[in-house]
Amino acid sequence: MIIVMKSKATKENIESVVDKLHKYGLEAHLSTGKQVTIIGVVGDKAVLSNKNMELLPGVDKLVPITETYKLVNRKFTEKNTTIKIKDVIIGGSNFTMIAGPCSVESEEQVYNTAQYLHESGIKILRGGAFKPRTSPYSFQGLGEEGLIYMKKAAKDFDMLMVSEVTSIRALDIAEPYLDIIQIGARNMQNYELLKEVGRTHKPVFLKRGLSATIDEWLNAAEYIIRENNSKVILCERGIRTFETATRNTLDISAVPVVKAKSHLPIFVDPSHASGVKDYIIPLARAAVAADCDGLMVEVHPHPEQALSDGAQALTPIDFTELLRQIKPIVNIMGRNIT
Amino acid sequence: MIIVMKSKATKENIESVVDKLHKYGLEAHLSTGKQVTIIGVVGDKAVLSNKNMELLPGVDKLVPITETYKLVNRKFTEKNTTIKIKDVIIGGSNFTMIAGPCSVESEEQVYNTAQYLHESGIKILRGGAFKPRTSPYSFQGLGEEGLIYMKKAAKDFDMLMVSEVTSIRALDIAEPYLDIIQIGARNMQNYELLKEVGRTHKPVFLKRGLSATIDEWLNAAEYIIRENNSKVILCERGIRTFETATRNTLDISAVPVVKAKSHLPIFVDPSHASGVKDYIIPLARAAVAADCDGLMVEVHPHPEQALSDGAQALTPIDFTELLRQIKPIVNIMGRNIT
Amino acid sequence: MIIVMKSKATKENIESVVDKLHKYGLEAHLSTGKQVTIIGVVGDKAVLSNKNMELLPGVDKLVPITETYKLVNRKFTEKNTTIKIKDVIIGGSNFTMIAGPCSVESEEQVYNTAQYLHESGIKILRGGAFKPRTSPYSFQGLGEEGLIYMKKAAKDFDMLMVSEVTSIRALDIAEPYLDIIQIGARNMQNYELLKEVGRTHKPVFLKRGLSATIDEWLNAAEYIIRENNSKVILCERGIRTFETATRNTLDISAVPVVKAKSHLPIFVDPSHASGVKDYIIPLARAAVAADCDGLMVEVHPHPEQALSDGAQALTPIDFTELLRQIKPIVNIMGRNIT
Amino acid sequence: MIIVMKSKATKENIESVVDKLHKYGLEAHLSTGKQVTIIGVVGDKAVLSNKNMELLPGVDKLVPITETYKLVNRKFTEKNTTIKIKDVIIGGSNFTMIAGPCSVESEEQVYNTAQYLHESGIKILRGGAFKPRTSPYSFQGLGEEGLIYMKKAAKDFDMLMVSEVTSIRALDIAEPYLDIIQIGARNMQNYELLKEVGRTHKPVFLKRGLSATIDEWLNAAEYIIRENNSKVILCERGIRTFETATRNTLDISAVPVVKAKSHLPIFVDPSHASGVKDYIIPLARAAVAADCDGLMVEVHPHPEQALSDGAQALTPIDFTELLRQIKPIVNIMGRNIT
Repeated sequence: MIIVMKSKATKENIESVVDKLHKYGLEAHLSTGKQVTIIGVVGDKAVLSNKNMELLPGVDKLVPITETYKLVNRKFTEKNTTIKIKDVIIGGSNFTMIAGPCSVESEEQVYNTAQYLHESGIKILRGGAFKPRTSPYSFQGLGEEGLIYMKKAAKDFDMLMVSEVTSIRALDIAEPYLDIIQIGARNMQNYELLKEVGRTHKPVFLKRGLSATIDEWLNAAEYIIRENNSKVILCERGIRTFETATRNTLDISAVPVVKAKSHLPIFVDPSHASGVKDYIIPLARAAVAADCDGLMVEVHPHPEQALSDGAQALTPIDFTELLRQIKPIVNIMGRNIT
Repeated sequence: MIIVMKSKATKENIESVVDKLHKYGLEAHLSTGKQVTIIGVVGDKAVLSNKNMELLPGVDKLVPITETYKLVNRKFTEKNTTIKIKDVIIGGSNFTMIAGPCSVESEEQVYNTAQYLHESGIKILRGGAFKPRTSPYSFQGLGEEGLIYMKKAAKDFDMLMVSEVTSIRALDIAEPYLDIIQIGARNMQNYELLKEVGRTHKPVFLKRGLSATIDEWLNAAEYIIRENNSKVILCERGIRTFETATRNTLDISAVPVVKAKSHLPIFVDPSHASGVKDYIIPLARAAVAADCDGLMVEVHPHPEQALSDGAQALTPIDFTELLRQIKPIVNIMGRNIT
Repeated sequence: MIIVMKSKATKENIESVVDKLHKYGLEAHLSTGKQVTIIGVVGDKAVLSNKNMELLPGVDKLVPITETYKLVNRKFTEKNTTIKIKDVIIGGSNFTMIAGPCSVESEEQVYNTAQYLHESGIKILRGGAFKPRTSPYSFQGLGEEGLIYMKKAAKDFDMLMVSEVTSIRALDIAEPYLDIIQIGARNMQNYELLKEVGRTHKPVFLKRGLSATIDEWLNAAEYIIRENNSKVILCERGIRTFETATRNTLDISAVPVVKAKSHLPIFVDPSHASGVKDYIIPLARAAVAADCDGLMVEVHPHPEQALSDGAQALTPIDFTELLRQIKPIVNIMGRNIT
Repeated sequence: MIIVMKSKATKENIESVVDKLHKYGLEAHLSTGKQVTIIGVVGDKAVLSNKNMELLPGVDKLVPITETYKLVNRKFTEKNTTIKIKDVIIGGSNFTMIAGPCSVESEEQVYNTAQYLHESGIKILRGGAFKPRTSPYSFQGLGEEGLIYMKKAAKDFDMLMVSEVTSIRALDIAEPYLDIIQIGARNMQNYELLKEVGRTHKPVFLKRGLSATIDEWLNAAEYIIRENNSKVILCERGIRTFETATRNTLDISAVPVVKAKSHLPIFVDPSHASGVKDYIIPLARAAVAADCDGLMVEVHPHPEQALSDGAQALTPIDFTELLRQIKPIVNIMGRNIT
């Protein structure tokens, strides 16, 4: 950490800051320029976290140099994390497709989708049972009933299943059904929920918040891993900007940035990122080429009958086309699709 | 709602959309231009919410015309909502100050702050017990212990108390202590929590999410009111933009916009909006002049010892100055400070 | 400036950076922590501006500490700048109203507006002759003809006039007519134009770019002042965010931030910031209370006939109401309206 | 266009709007719902552009349905535009690389770069002579001298050259040297300059503004084409968001969105989009996979000596690696690299 003094800071101000640092067991290195003096702080800066050094007389601002997250940080764990769930391995040289309807709507709907996906070689089924909807008048999901339908389909077609939990109460209900627990964008900073999914020790699929910086997202992952659950999969799903041609703006750079800063696997969800069916396949290709570890895509047997987000759902025919188009790029990236 | 057809939509496409609308009991009004045909839909559009009309052949897009929220909508309730809590009335011609420390840190800290605020005429004490922090390594709040300290101070100085709940579990613990339940920015779209605070029937202080549109915020309020709890107070606290000189960008326009769209009281929190102590008083003056119904401000007896957000806390001396500066503007706005 | 080394930087890497700094006549102060070494640089950092120190082996990033702008910087000029134009003084304890139509549309329109404004005590007339419009099919302004009409009105009613220039060519035409030269948001980073208006030595009204940070805006002002034209007036007019209830988001914090960072006068344009007539008066009050030095407001005798931005124009009756509402707040702020 | 009436609009209000529309030769189609009446407008809406219909009594808002741009609009020109410049064809099934230094710094620098690029098969050389820099104290480019150096290199290695013009004055100087005229992000809404480059009839490389929507960008292209210069190439280079890990946020979705809305070729500049060398190759791969028509990349023989943007320049070795990595993806996309 660096402490930047005001241009009018007195010698006494500076000495007082240095004294404080020494008192906390930290070293202080001064650089005294014509305009300002800066103080480099060496030692375990955690002791400063509640010390409000910026309020000492003469202090202008603090400039953090090192990240606050440790367990997810590439600096401390060089090797990429891989996560094994039954016979599926996420990360490494694997490329993993997760697909399914936005919401589970009926036993038949999720069963038919799962069958089709299974026949296409897909091993992880997604489907929403607890739906966070902007309006209270929109379809809120089938709850446990949806999970029961989904479980039956997943079992019959030997697929893993992932679904979003929106509260600790939903987690209690959903956990027994799930192979992977999804935390949605709106709950990325629901820290109580993050701690609780950390305690389950099941793999967690953590979507980036709509306006979360990558650093905040990695801090959210840190909340989970700190509960001794290291099985976290990150998923970029678009951020909020001024552009309105797409529902969100897919931050494709998040893929290489996350890979540089963390060892966790990173997925992309082109369905939520664009919100427009016609843009999903190009974005899926781009995500693969950016070297993400997998995709989450919404597929619905009859999008025009979907109870949520039908406009961004691919039909089975579309999805087959998506697979056809991404496969050669997956190969070029040196990965095997699963 | 308007349905815009693609420029290449056939006559059959258009007829098929009209037939569907009729089937759902809705009227369809066509405007056929040179470029495109648009269809005005008349009737209870709620029946369309899960119908994915945008997926019918030839449909380009749907353009919603009316808001999804009803109970918070000024169109259906013209009169401003006022909320009476013991002898404090929020809204109407009242201007209400809420103040206190970011976090409750000790019995003494909150007691001293409350005493000072009481002597300054403040009737609502704020203080965080459950703190949502970006990093898991930051101070997470004292939990119930903090509420006990706060309750003692509030009781002795005859103040109401408000504190944030971050989960249903925290709500269960905190509710008995609280006069007003705060939902923070990070939980504005934690819909399960919104429903649950709706069921308590206690007044709810609902902060705007960091990247929430005003419409989404009003929809969040709708979630609460729909549980038969009409006592919702909105609070603008800054949105996330590219500007870095302040922690967030105070969207001052939210005050007149909310007043135009809704009948609920609207507060402003200049402490979180700026994150910089020196900017809080000017922003507080601006918020009063924009005609908000009250302010929430962070005050700490010794900001340099604060365990969270010390950089934005006002000292008692600063706060006295803030009161001195806003009072004449409150009067000009035809309001009485409480 | 601070140079942060990578966690894996070798001793040789660090020495090599230090050697370079010494070679350029700069001092280097090392702080060697467990994770990283940081190097505080002391001396005239301008010599480093083209040296790409971040590309030296082992360097992680450069962290600038001091601002790049000097002439507009409060650190080097403590006293507020006031600008005298004939008998009008901008800045200091003055509060200055600038008003007039978005576009000059006819001799009669601008004359009638000027007459009314003059009778209301307004001394500076605005009006667009060269209009930057998003679509080439929108009204592009009357050009010099508009300036001639405006000049006649300004002269007869003893008003100063300000109008936007959109190119060096427009500047050549407009300069003889203008008392104040306006640079619009879209041209805030048109550096060739900034230099050229700097050379005119006439006062410049510099609007903030739609997505410009405050630092970039102050750098734009630096371009002008560096040509020995210190008469720069800044004007906040809203920034682009995700919120769509208003055309732009008025960054009200820009007023205290600019006052902290610079000595230049700062105005607010609530008309462009909101784009909605009903929100202009509340935003004007807020801007006054934030302690800005003046307002620019659009007034049109018959907004429903305006050729541009009619939706945000105030009628003379609205404008009288605006004046009535802001005057007491101007007085509270210790200013005199002009 | 749709006119939405206020919920309290009277019958007279509605009739008055309809009368106005008829007066302007337009048809009006009413849809009268329980909450509001909407009026679909049919006919040449251009006549309404200056009519401020939103100010008529009882009108709530106007909702535009069709785009304001025509000449760049895919709806009116289905076939993709290809642009032939000497023996290079841009667009269609071609994939075109543009490379070179951010700034031309010396005869030797640009010559060596051009030689290397030529040997790598690159046919278009980029290099900045007029540099728009945030700070007036940064290197502003060599001006015409830079163009002379660049021309010599381009001629000797049989390359086309592209360089940015920042004003009409710079355009007058640069035009004779250039095969393609670049308009940078900061000048995307410098409409006078757009018209002027339109009049040159040389191909124009139009970068997206930092906070421009795709619709505004297409309108900027319309300004050029309207001067009878249809040779416009669009280039996405990142937009401004809250994320700070990259300099800008590459809006990869812009590629499919532009392709859906327009027939013009679309390039991507991963160098400016990220600002970080390590992220350029992944973003280049993603851009190719999104099906863009070409890339613009910064290459410098000695980035550590670059006078501008050294941190994002690729070395020749890096660039060779970029080519190696994108080539198979270019092939998969069914394109030929040029």
